Amino acid sequence: MSTFAVVLAGGSGTRFWPASRRDHPKQLLALGPKDDTSLIAATVRRLGGICPPERILISTGARLLESTRQALPELPRDAFLGEPVARNTAPCIAWATQCVARRDPEATLMVLPSDHHIGDEEAFRATLERAIGSAETGPITTIGIQPTRPETGYGYIEAADSVGEGVLRVERFVEKPDRTRAERFMRSGRHFWNSGMFFFRAQGMLSAIERHLPELHRGLTALERAAAEGADAERAEILRFFETAPAVSIDYGVMEKEASLNVVPASFGWSDLGSWHSAWELAQRDPHDNALDPSCLALESSGNLVMDLRTDTARRVIAAVGVEGLCVVATDDALLVIPRERAQDVRLVVDALRERGRDDLL
Amino acid sequence: MSTFAVVLAGGSGTRFWPASRRDHPKQLLALGPKDDTSLIAATVRRLGGICPPERILISTGARLLESTRQALPELPRDAFLGEPVARNTAPCIAWATQCVARRDPEATLMVLPSDHHIGDEEAFRATLERAIGSAETGPITTIGIQPTRPETGYGYIEAADSVGEGVLRVERFVEKPDRTRAERFMRSGRHFWNSGMFFFRAQGMLSAIERHLPELHRGLTALERAAAEGADAERAEILRFFETAPAVSIDYGVMEKEASLNVVPASFGWSDLGSWHSAWELAQRDPHDNALDPSCLALESSGNLVMDLRTDTARRVIAAVGVEGLCVVATDDALLVIPRERAQDVRLVVDALRERGRDDLL
Repeated sequence: MSTFAVVLAGGSGTRFWPASRRDHPKQLLALGPKDDTSLIAATVRRLGGICPPERILISTGARLLESTRQALPELPRDAFLGEPVARNTAPCIAWATQCVARRDPEATLMVLPSDHHIGDEEAFRATLERAIGSAETGPITTIGIQPTRPETGYGYIEAADSVGEGVLRVERFVEKPDRTRAERFMRSGRHFWNSGMFFFRAQGMLSAIERHLPELHRGLTALERAAAEGADAERAEILRFFETAPAVSIDYGVMEKEASLNVVPASFGWSDLGSWHSAWELAQRDPHDNALDPSCLALESSGNLVMDLRTDTARRVIAAVGVEGLCVVATDDALLVIPRERAQDVRLVVDALRERGRDDLL
Repeated sequence: MSTFAVVLAGGSGTRFWPASRRDHPKQLLALGPKDDTSLIAATVRRLGGICPPERILISTGARLLESTRQALPELPRDAFLGEPVARNTAPCIAWATQCVARRDPEATLMVLPSDHHIGDEEAFRATLERAIGSAETGPITTIGIQPTRPETGYGYIEAADSVGEGVLRVERFVEKPDRTRAERFMRSGRHFWNSGMFFFRAQGMLSAIERHLPELHRGLTALERAAAEGADAERAEILRFFETAPAVSIDYGVMEKEASLNVVPASFGWSDLGSWHSAWELAQRDPHDNALDPSCLALESSGNLVMDLRTDTARRVIAAVGVEGLCVVATDDALLVIPRERAQDVRLVVDALRERGRDDLL
């Protein structure tokens, strides 16, 4: 009864433009405060002691396969599952679960995002072990993050009674709340942020998919058959599987329909790093609250994030004078200037560039 | 009795960093609103019809000789006078005056800055002709700009009675005033901004130098003697002349000591382009008051100057979102972000870079 990890690395978000690009998305960036490791490499590193490299799978887009492999040179080539087309999380988790079940029908899986930051890795690993323990008893199990602010941008998990030490039954999933409800949730002690991490027995997930997403399950059956015929047949069937799969999230397609789920509440300095503002929050800052790369100079300025991702920075400089609360991010081909509190509006730039046909900058 | 122009191009200011550098100062930049001509080329172009190319001299620093020549390919090689060391304006004007007097002892000179902007070139040329006419009657003549705001950053010229059409006697020079006095000056009708443009007969200036700066005049005499001995002797003496010359401005050393001076009041859309803020003021702006280079994108932003001086801008972008009143200037090796109203503080960056030994960026 082995434990496998599936790291979801299909994202090609635009929130960290110009650092993130279609071919170099957020999980490949080093946005953490302490080191220059990519978020995905940090995610895999955190599994040390929990899950050996040969039991880690990386689910990513086919076009990101090579760059993702390069970010994780310690993993074997067949650790990487490339989705030929993006179809949200249910199809890729279904496929990964089937791959694991083929190797060990009794396996337990944990599914983890590749682009989050974890402040306390010891606490994180303790939580993983508790969640794996819960999943091994049967129910799909999630990690619920103890809210630290009345966040309206996340979904919440409402917990019911305890079913074991540090494990609660899930009462229901709650969509992004308004401010008033978010404040109530924060005080309730029973509402947790949906971390997007979940744990399940392979067979349990395959049955759940059969119950809630029968069309997807038929695709899995065809895939199983093709795999038995050889690599070429399997490759062709993977393409068909994704092309015909419903583009549905595992949360909506399976989790919210399951009768019995568990949640493990946790606090381990979690951040989903949703914008340049979060990167500033996590970053090491000078006494004026500036988060600066070494090639940056901030004079009479405070609360800024200045990130220099250009090549050859030793020869270059970014100088800010008399500015407050700005994010300034430079790459070789692009420069972004945006107030920290509007960081989520980076998408406006991406939209404008797309409209102008500047795909070279996306 | 011919008219010569001496264009002063010795400046190596820091106010337009990172566009301006020690080896590429402001006068070599294209900061005007209408074209991509350098300020110095626009200065020479404005003299068309007033002064033929062979009677234009360019006074610059020896280290700037080649780049200045490149900016003015229409001028002959010997039009360029290179000061071996910078010694403020009196020595270089003295030298240029002597050079002109050697060619035509009866000549009249106009001395013009190389790095100003003139909005109305026709009015400008009419003013030049009036000032030349005044100088030909004897007195050193200046142009006084009609104040359009209570500026505290300029010196003023106080005018007395009229001595001819559009020509007034100078009562005195006034140092940079405080705000209250500047407001009074603006209302008085008798106070004008010192434009740094002046007009004189060669012999008149040489006599004035002899009276007020006798040491400098002795240097001129030695220079004259050496020039008669040949090019090598002259070159050696030029070096000695500048090394031993007093570093004094022509205003302080000569003008303010002269008993009789004239001033020609004028309004021709003058700007000394003192900072990035002035460049924004002059620039063509979009309906949101942004002055943008074509490679720049300003979304929900207003009142910004975004200047992209990087190479290969067709491949690049600068994106500003939700910012107001900023100057953003990018070169290949440097990026400046500063509020427009603090544009004069660019010097803080230059100072900081010098302190850090980053001469490569100055």
